[in-house]
Amino acid sequence: MSLEFLIEKTSGPGRRGRLRTPHAEIETPVFMPVGTVASVKGVPQDTLEELGAQIILGNTYHLYLRPGVETVRKMGGLHGFMSWNRAILTDSGGFQVFSLSELRKLTEDGVTFRSHLDGSSHFFSPESAMEAQISLGADIIMAFDECTEYPADQARMRQSMELTARWAARSKKYFEEHKHNVPWKTPLGKEHVATAAFGRVTTGQPKAAVPTCFERTQSLFGIVQGGMDRALRKESAERTIEIGFPGYAIGGLSVGEPRELTREIVESTLEHLPKDKPRYLMGVGTPEEIVEYANLGVDMMDCVLPTRAARHGLLFTSEGKVSIKQARYVQDQGSLDPNCSCRVCQRYSRAYLRHLYASNEVLAQVLNTIHNLTFYLDTMRRVRHSISLGEEYRFLSGVWSRPAP
Amino acid sequence: MSLEFLIEKTSGPGRRGRLRTPHAEIETPVFMPVGTVASVKGVPQDTLEELGAQIILGNTYHLYLRPGVETVRKMGGLHGFMSWNRAILTDSGGFQVFSLSELRKLTEDGVTFRSHLDGSSHFFSPESAMEAQISLGADIIMAFDECTEYPADQARMRQSMELTARWAARSKKYFEEHKHNVPWKTPLGKEHVATAAFGRVTTGQPKAAVPTCFERTQSLFGIVQGGMDRALRKESAERTIEIGFPGYAIGGLSVGEPRELTREIVESTLEHLPKDKPRYLMGVGTPEEIVEYANLGVDMMDCVLPTRAARHGLLFTSEGKVSIKQARYVQDQGSLDPNCSCRVCQRYSRAYLRHLYASNEVLAQVLNTIHNLTFYLDTMRRVRHSISLGEEYRFLSGVWSRPAP
Repeated sequence: MSLEFLIEKTSGPGRRGRLRTPHAEIETPVFMPVGTVASVKGVPQDTLEELGAQIILGNTYHLYLRPGVETVRKMGGLHGFMSWNRAILTDSGGFQVFSLSELRKLTEDGVTFRSHLDGSSHFFSPESAMEAQISLGADIIMAFDECTEYPADQARMRQSMELTARWAARSKKYFEEHKHNVPWKTPLGKEHVATAAFGRVTTGQPKAAVPTCFERTQSLFGIVQGGMDRALRKESAERTIEIGFPGYAIGGLSVGEPRELTREIVESTLEHLPKDKPRYLMGVGTPEEIVEYANLGVDMMDCVLPTRAARHGLLFTSEGKVSIKQARYVQDQGSLDPNCSCRVCQRYSRAYLRHLYASNEVLAQVLNTIHNLTFYLDTMRRVRHSISLGEEYRFLSGVWSRPAP
Repeated sequence: MSLEFLIEKTSGPGRRGRLRTPHAEIETPVFMPVGTVASVKGVPQDTLEELGAQIILGNTYHLYLRPGVETVRKMGGLHGFMSWNRAILTDSGGFQVFSLSELRKLTEDGVTFRSHLDGSSHFFSPESAMEAQISLGADIIMAFDECTEYPADQARMRQSMELTARWAARSKKYFEEHKHNVPWKTPLGKEHVATAAFGRVTTGQPKAAVPTCFERTQSLFGIVQGGMDRALRKESAERTIEIGFPGYAIGGLSVGEPRELTREIVESTLEHLPKDKPRYLMGVGTPEEIVEYANLGVDMMDCVLPTRAARHGLLFTSEGKVSIKQARYVQDQGSLDPNCSCRVCQRYSRAYLRHLYASNEVLAQVLNTIHNLTFYLDTMRRVRHSISLGEEYRFLSGVWSRPAP
């Protein structure tokens, strides 16, 4: 096996665990910063390490177009290319093909599309998406799926879900036959002895180390689709589980539907996913949402919100959102978030951050992104801590609470 | 006195010294990175500290327009505003008024100009430029001068030089009458005892500490103009020295003239400047030039070249210039400069830097700037070391040499 998942503690449906990948062990629930083209925009890798980013996400569609998977493969995969020795996850490229490119033709075989960069024509299939992701060499890669648009009628949701299921089987088949082509050049320095039985669910302390064979290949996750229909989501989950993956993602959410509906679909879909495997909710969400979904039992989340909002001067703080461009901050000597220990809040005033943003200085993006990522990663740290403490303590919407007895 | 300058060692005309300012002691010769609007573009202040930047430069013209001197003054000056506790120098604004803005009217009194940002009308005089610089609160500030264009005829060079001389006297008068308005709120924590007699020239070891009164105000430097005419430069130096400043700058060079002419004017002007005062060559230059001029006895230099070139993908290395955008680097696994110990060269490949630049990623600017500044600051460190070693050793054009006996 190339992935181990140990649940160390549960609190209601929420779980605190450890996910062992070839490059790093990850504490879950985890938030994964998005590094679209092998860079979390504006943030050097050593700073990401300082912030405690355990795993970052790369976008296969973007990397395929630029610099191209062959270049990344020759540099030892994304880890070597971008000099990042912690874990990486790549998406399948499907979501961007449908959302960013000019889609030319969708067939059972795959998708022909035009690059959003130069209009050139390309083809993605489950097989070619796997080939690309094996060359990119992330620790966790994703099956090629079709992200169903919102709104969609029942027939469309079913047809799309079924296509995703067939593509999942093809993705797994290609992956199993080619996974040893991963471009990692050298094994990790230290002996790989598993610290726990794979997938063992426990609510107590970690088990003593149980030596198992840990294979240094990638892991392929399946993706549950099915639009906003609970029955289709259940069927999609069952069909994906039948194919069999070491982890399962919930895709096709946060695509424009009301937040209540997102939550309903997440909660109902989680019921049908195996408890002993990591569950990844794709493309979600606000700070409140990542807390909510982690407490519902989601183990992994990614979202462009903290990094994208930072570029637009929207900053998340313990006292609420701050739009740093506002004139009210021109002479505000206070720190951005008095409860934040990041290097931005410890050093700079709101007035300075406002000035950098208003002057269109690159440092604005750098500092804003560092702060927003800190806020997200700190939020997830608090969620993990609250799950460790047990059901009496909850960390919700940025506030610790202990329900009355 | 608010500035102390100690020459610890000379090697030919080159001098290695220490310049004590209210916020920091600076080893000279020193290169000053340019932080136009209170930010060295793309580089956080803690990174600048790591790189060993001892003093940075702010542009009064830009800061006057945005965020405005009153805002900076209320934040405790530039030091408080940008959270930088080492030394700062501001220029007078004159150069930018003449080069960036739409110049409306130049009179004996001053200059009326339109902002390059929004076309609004403003007026700079020696007095208002001093007032702005006192509010900005840099450790070293510059007299308001007119930077003579190149080429210019003899009459124009003389007229411009004489205007600069009259403005220098007005600058000094206003500064002396208002320097106590500097917005620093608190004295430094430790007792200010001078470590050496002011301006004492010595070729041996530093003298034992001689307690003197160290006044915590800014220092105003005069600027020598005179175009490309050696006699006018001499006259300008004499007239500026007669007014009396704790340091002298050579302005009006690197404005389009041939490099041989620059060197000739620098060398001849230096002859007329007091040996015991710091000498600042403004807006110069390439890595080769900063070495050359430091060895000629220049103590301070600033230039946008390392930061601006970085933004255009032009990188300075021990093996020559690298234009990182070139296709030859697409799969180049080597580090940018194998002889550089900066965090960029220690971690990333040329292929990755090329990809970031080609993909228009903000991290390209961040990393390129960090490297180029490291190269400049390391170059100046080597020059200081070479002067310490004495005349037998020279560091020129990036190469150590020991002349044949």
